[in-house]
Amino acid sequence: MEDKLRVTVVGAGNLGTHLGLKLHAQGFPIEQVFSRKRAKAKSLADRCAAKSVTALKDISSNADLYLVAVPDDALPAIASELTLKEKVVAHTSGAAPSDALAEVSPFCGVLYPMQSFTRTAESPSEFVVAVNSEIETVTKILTKVATALSDNVLHLNDEQRLTMHVAAVLVNNFPNHLYAIAEGLLNEAEMSFDIMKPLLQETTRKALSESPILTQTGPAKRSDFKTIQAHLDLIKNKPALEDIYMAITESIIESEKKRS
Amino acid sequence: MEDKLRVTVVGAGNLGTHLGLKLHAQGFPIEQVFSRKRAKAKSLADRCAAKSVTALKDISSNADLYLVAVPDDALPAIASELTLKEKVVAHTSGAAPSDALAEVSPFCGVLYPMQSFTRTAESPSEFVVAVNSEIETVTKILTKVATALSDNVLHLNDEQRLTMHVAAVLVNNFPNHLYAIAEGLLNEAEMSFDIMKPLLQETTRKALSESPILTQTGPAKRSDFKTIQAHLDLIKNKPALEDIYMAITESIIESEKKRS
Repeated sequence: MEDKLRVTVVGAGNLGTHLGLKLHAQGFPIEQVFSRKRAKAKSLADRCAAKSVTALKDISSNADLYLVAVPDDALPAIASELTLKEKVVAHTSGAAPSDALAEVSPFCGVLYPMQSFTRTAESPSEFVVAVNSEIETVTKILTKVATALSDNVLHLNDEQRLTMHVAAVLVNNFPNHLYAIAEGLLNEAEMSFDIMKPLLQETTRKALSESPILTQTGPAKRSDFKTIQAHLDLIKNKPALEDIYMAITESIIESEKKRS
Repeated sequence: MEDKLRVTVVGAGNLGTHLGLKLHAQGFPIEQVFSRKRAKAKSLADRCAAKSVTALKDISSNADLYLVAVPDDALPAIASELTLKEKVVAHTSGAAPSDALAEVSPFCGVLYPMQSFTRTAESPSEFVVAVNSEIETVTKILTKVATALSDNVLHLNDEQRLTMHVAAVLVNNFPNHLYAIAEGLLNEAEMSFDIMKPLLQETTRKALSESPILTQTGPAKRSDFKTIQAHLDLIKNKPALEDIYMAITESIIESEKKRS
């Protein structure tokens, strides 16, 4: 069985699409692709030589592994509507417990690829996959699949994975929002976000080569309250940004106090 | 005069060092290097064939341009202690008004290189320089010098430059602090910041190629309150991080409402 693990992909969004295509390319037969949206199910199924289904009750028991790539808040519906006794089922969430799909099958676990997959861009080739299950044989099967997806497979317990998920928000979602705010401010003042790109690249280069804890710079780090006040004056009509500015500034000042 | 503009560098920190060395390499004679710390003044002066001075009163009137690269809160002391009538003087601050050194000389302005210069790393080769003065001849001289430093010279008024400075905080200082928090959380849970690097690279690649306003992802963008709550539960003993998490999450939710 191990050499021809048949996979059914539940969910045909960005992540489901990436997983289906990559596993298909790696020689895993894809049995079915499920999405409530017919066009999405069919589009992905066609690309990985699978059948498409749009109702959970039509998911067959012909696969060995069921990969559930749906938003976290859709997991409870899957858990209550889908039954696959004796089959291995794994969700792909960074935050949900590894037994979130225990109602679907006792052989449940998690395979969480930490990356930002989007429709528009080429899928990134490098990412970390965190695997976990309370059942050792499930962990083995998920590890085998994860190893086909990535060179970087980690076995993490639920709390470690949730910590990694919070870290992903801090490294991806939150910085991106700060960039978006910067873009908006610059556009309002008739400048382009392009002018920030050399600084953005250097910031990233440094974070990839040195410990971010050791390389903090800026007015908050220097307790330069005159500059901080000039910034607050500039953004005084933007309460959401003011809140962010104050929260991060206070946190930097507090971190510096602890370090010194 | 234009071909052999003699420059005195006031301040021998990271930025002063970078500017002195780069202008020296570009053929600008460096007249003096000032730092209150003798070793720093001498070290930089030696590297750019200049004389070193450690008292403001010893700054000679032999140069054509005085570049003042000191922290913002040191500018008032320079303004009140240094007099260089008829000479061009420019500070290098992102936040201070272009006439902050008007007491030093009426021919005053600003030359602000937006980049993160550090002692440890090689100086980044690419950066934007913002130039401004109320006096046209000063603007011309500063533009000439800025063009020797960078291909990317902008003429920005004080409010635009302050906006760019806030944007720099949003693109550099604040994301770096978020990375530092992530590093701390991961270390506490016995993981390394290294596991975040593929995601960090992808986040940056995307911000460099697409508008960050259009590429937001994550639980806040999806209004996935269950995941947000799981994150808040994990960090509940870290009030500074909780404040940051809530402020950015609320701002993302608000931005999404405005967009839809």
